[in-house]
Amino acid sequence: MKILITGIAGFVGSGLAKELLGLGHDIVGVDNLSNGRIQNVPVGADFVKGDCHDFDTLKVLFEKHSFQLVYHLAGQSSGEISFENPIYDLESNTTSTLHLINFCKLFSVPKMIYASTMSVYGDAEELPVSETYTNLIPKSFYAVGKLASENYLRINSNKNFQTVALRFFNIYGPGQNLENLKQGMVSIFLAQMIKSRTITIKGSGERFRDFIHIKDVIEALKALMFKDYKEDFKIYNICSGQPTKVKNLISLLESSSSFKIKHQYTDSTPGDQFGIYGSYSAFQRDFEWLPKVSFDDGIKDLVKLYEKD
Amino acid sequence: MKILITGIAGFVGSGLAKELLGLGHDIVGVDNLSNGRIQNVPVGADFVKGDCHDFDTLKVLFEKHSFQLVYHLAGQSSGEISFENPIYDLESNTTSTLHLINFCKLFSVPKMIYASTMSVYGDAEELPVSETYTNLIPKSFYAVGKLASENYLRINSNKNFQTVALRFFNIYGPGQNLENLKQGMVSIFLAQMIKSRTITIKGSGERFRDFIHIKDVIEALKALMFKDYKEDFKIYNICSGQPTKVKNLISLLESSSSFKIKHQYTDSTPGDQFGIYGSYSAFQRDFEWLPKVSFDDGIKDLVKLYEKD
Repeated sequence: MKILITGIAGFVGSGLAKELLGLGHDIVGVDNLSNGRIQNVPVGADFVKGDCHDFDTLKVLFEKHSFQLVYHLAGQSSGEISFENPIYDLESNTTSTLHLINFCKLFSVPKMIYASTMSVYGDAEELPVSETYTNLIPKSFYAVGKLASENYLRINSNKNFQTVALRFFNIYGPGQNLENLKQGMVSIFLAQMIKSRTITIKGSGERFRDFIHIKDVIEALKALMFKDYKEDFKIYNICSGQPTKVKNLISLLESSSSFKIKHQYTDSTPGDQFGIYGSYSAFQRDFEWLPKVSFDDGIKDLVKLYEKD
Repeated sequence: MKILITGIAGFVGSGLAKELLGLGHDIVGVDNLSNGRIQNVPVGADFVKGDCHDFDTLKVLFEKHSFQLVYHLAGQSSGEISFENPIYDLESNTTSTLHLINFCKLFSVPKMIYASTMSVYGDAEELPVSETYTNLIPKSFYAVGKLASENYLRINSNKNFQTVALRFFNIYGPGQNLENLKQGMVSIFLAQMIKSRTITIKGSGERFRDFIHIKDVIEALKALMFKDYKEDFKIYNICSGQPTKVKNLISLLESSSSFKIKHQYTDSTPGDQFGIYGSYSAFQRDFEWLPKVSFDDGIKDLVKLYEKD
């Protein structure tokens, strides 16, 4: 199958590309390398450097290749950075989606899978939050743009162009960019820990998150490849279903380390959600998917891996 | 008071500008004249031709003037056109809002009032719909971009930058552009009636809308000028509170005309809501505003006015 992966040099995109190449698929990838790294792009993928919000970049790709599936994973993925450059955030997360929708329809691509985020829920009042929760009050520019993209997909989906938006919760695991200290709670803490053996936590330790391992995320993305969709547009949570307090993540990181680690608390970042965790029962029901990596194992292995480097 | 009105050459912007000039305010206006007409800009307003999604246009304006209030009324306002050019729609309705927020904050403008739309409700299940309704499923690109703008305002508002988003229902009245046959239900029908004495209705006559006269809209916009806001960000419906079936609008137009008018029904346009009307009780409570022009009078006067021309 010929598949386009946007954001192929990123954490999720590169992991997915590697898997799909291993299964014998024909992978084309695009990435502007603003956060992704060229060395992440797996051998065998056809790579183009460019912006997904750039019409001409996409035009060349769609004219050259006949895609059967698009994974749109590219985008600015830090709530914090979205406050510093809201226009770039809107372009990379929303304009890109609009362009891709247009090209998919023009070139009869039957399916598109979109990386959305649990951030669209804001401070959800019903936990674990499910996809049917309606009072969406996004708290960051990032979340606003992702929600708009979901809405664009909903409006454009039909039996000839089926789309899925996955609301990813906090993804962690091998391959995260430890040089970007503004996105990925686990990778931020891990990077600090490795660099200075001190973790600085922006905000309360009582905040809680739903951490999902990259392996489980990739399995979820793969599950969407072949199965027929019952609905032309569908939103799914991709999460572990377990709340973990930030202070417990810190303890686990500290106990997993071979070194003595200190930590300190400071002010929170704007647009940060206090606590959220999700229900994955809809995705489980429709795609027979279950998260498999336990948080304890996932974190321990990750610390081991990075402390070895 | 020095006031910026974006979309000053448009239906609402020009009407507001005229009123505020009459009250002795200092009015600066910007418009790209894509839909608005230069002859609409009232004498006495300081006018700049330009796009509100263009950083440099806004930079010049904010550097030159010290605004105390911004009315952001510019934007592509047709659901139908938003399907033909979603990227332009996103830029004119959403990127423009982001830029204006940034400039207002940078130049310490204390208040911004935004023209949103009842389209953000989609097919609301509770009628009359109020601002607390949560299950927002926008059906057009236009509505997606407006909803995103509301969210950007919510995130950015604080005691030093207070904002209000007005969800306008179907505005009609003198000053509507009768040359644009893709926006404004009343003006579309009126234009057809005057040109060919035949009205073509896209979609069912059983659909219903909440029509609000331009005079009442301008009173609402004026009411927001001086009163202190209780909350830093607030959304209000601006509507009549009355549902009117499309077929009844047609009858009223026909009976108001001096000529024999025919009508015919055809297929609906994409993203059209079936039926909606709103509750204005929140705005009434906070700003002592009430719609005053009856629909019958409003339509009769309008037909008389345009048939005279």
